[in-house]
Amino acid sequence: MHDISLSRARLPATLEIEVLDEFGEAKRQAIAAERALTVYLNRREIVTLMTLGADPEALVVGYLRNQGLLIEQADLQAVHVDWEVEAAAVVTRHLPEDLEERLGQRTVTTGCGQGTVFGRLLEATSLRPLPTTAIRQSVLYRLLDNLGAYNETYRSAGAVHGCALCRQEGVLDFIEDVGRHNAVDTLAGRQWLAEAESTDADIFYTTGRLTSEMVLKVAQMGIGVLVSRSGVTQKGVELAERFGVLLIARAKGRRFQAIHGAGRLELDAVPQRRPGDRARA
Amino acid sequence: MHDISLSRARLPATLEIEVLDEFGEAKRQAIAAERALTVYLNRREIVTLMTLGADPEALVVGYLRNQGLLIEQADLQAVHVDWEVEAAAVVTRHLPEDLEERLGQRTVTTGCGQGTVFGRLLEATSLRPLPTTAIRQSVLYRLLDNLGAYNETYRSAGAVHGCALCRQEGVLDFIEDVGRHNAVDTLAGRQWLAEAESTDADIFYTTGRLTSEMVLKVAQMGIGVLVSRSGVTQKGVELAERFGVLLIARAKGRRFQAIHGAGRLELDAVPQRRPGDRARA
Repeated sequence: MHDISLSRARLPATLEIEVLDEFGEAKRQAIAAERALTVYLNRREIVTLMTLGADPEALVVGYLRNQGLLIEQADLQAVHVDWEVEAAAVVTRHLPEDLEERLGQRTVTTGCGQGTVFGRLLEATSLRPLPTTAIRQSVLYRLLDNLGAYNETYRSAGAVHGCALCRQEGVLDFIEDVGRHNAVDTLAGRQWLAEAESTDADIFYTTGRLTSEMVLKVAQMGIGVLVSRSGVTQKGVELAERFGVLLIARAKGRRFQAIHGAGRLELDAVPQRRPGDRARA
Repeated sequence: MHDISLSRARLPATLEIEVLDEFGEAKRQAIAAERALTVYLNRREIVTLMTLGADPEALVVGYLRNQGLLIEQADLQAVHVDWEVEAAAVVTRHLPEDLEERLGQRTVTTGCGQGTVFGRLLEATSLRPLPTTAIRQSVLYRLLDNLGAYNETYRSAGAVHGCALCRQEGVLDFIEDVGRHNAVDTLAGRQWLAEAESTDADIFYTTGRLTSEMVLKVAQMGIGVLVSRSGVTQKGVELAERFGVLLIARAKGRRFQAIHGAGRLELDAVPQRRPGDRARA
């Protein structure tokens, strides 16, 4: 599958607009780009994704892959993104036999509605067993420190979510997008395009909330530890228990909450209590 | 349409789980509920929504209404929510003639994928002209202060978005949900079920980002001022300009950024500059 790298189209992730602040002063403010990208699979319109556009080819492939519309990497023949017409044309040798059924299903998730895979996975009887990776508190802290160097778009423009594939404290890959799902799908797409049988990553980090579909996607990627700077929802916790994902929520600075599988977290760097920790806890 | 109030099913918005904090101490933490609700319209499965479940009947009606699947309020005969089977059965006298076409379309928005209406509206040539409501800075500040009394679920559990219908500084209605769209649709559903021809609200507040589909939904509700404590995206600004929505982003405490239609904002309460305002701005 060679046709992809040639077509990679890059666009700026942010643009500047003029805003009026509370002092009545006009100033320039960076905002996140948001572009419509309509995905065609063998000339059939599948979906329109709203994206930052950082890596559209990987996004499209990851999306189709996670929706079960692309099965074998070897079947993928071409991915061409044309921002002029806001379209991505994907060509594959084989389409799934249950294409119609898959396209018929719709679950609007709390994330961004990539619910076909979501609906299916909730019914899935089996998922590849996840590695029961252990993680040390000191490693988690170093990882959070390392991640501080990313989030470029968020720092300047906000309104985006960041996701990272990590191996212990090392950040293997990082992507931002206006939708949490786009970020996850893009990472999955890159991995798949690299023809990696399985990921080297053992920790998945997201700035977004740990809702049901986020836990689901990470479990799909075969990663057993999910770290977020945000909170969790009921179904997120339920699925973490079901799939055996260690959830670490509200991870910011030295604080965090380990929710499921906390036994796999080694507390080797318990911080000194400072006045207020109790109150803040 | 009387069958709805009878069936109103209420469930707790949060539940407590045990978490392990960075000091290795187990403690109870409230988390947001997240429930699957599959919507059937005249016995046909339409979609599965992931929701907090605060007002499922209004959510379902608002969703179907915003998707263009329910047209006349008078056609609506019944809405029954059964959490036992996670299903909402909606009965209407008439279905839109282009039902199949509408169900065929899918746009995964940055919010939560309620994209059929989104896709259509982007193509819509006309939208009811929006009121060019003016707002005073002092009123905005009082509104933000008043909103502080809401966000119950967020304060205890996080992981939810809040939306409010406001009339100047007064909060007319407020709802939280795990998805931004669910919150907007629920407010729209309540309004529609109340058979209100048009809303009394002139300001819409959301804790969420001002992405394309949020601006779209608010324009659909006939409200001309959109206030958010978060940032904006490119398409959000584009649509605000197109529909004439005054966008006020990053509204928190005394700070904000007026983005489009700032001429309609009267700066009658410019705060005293404090050291650091520049740096923070």
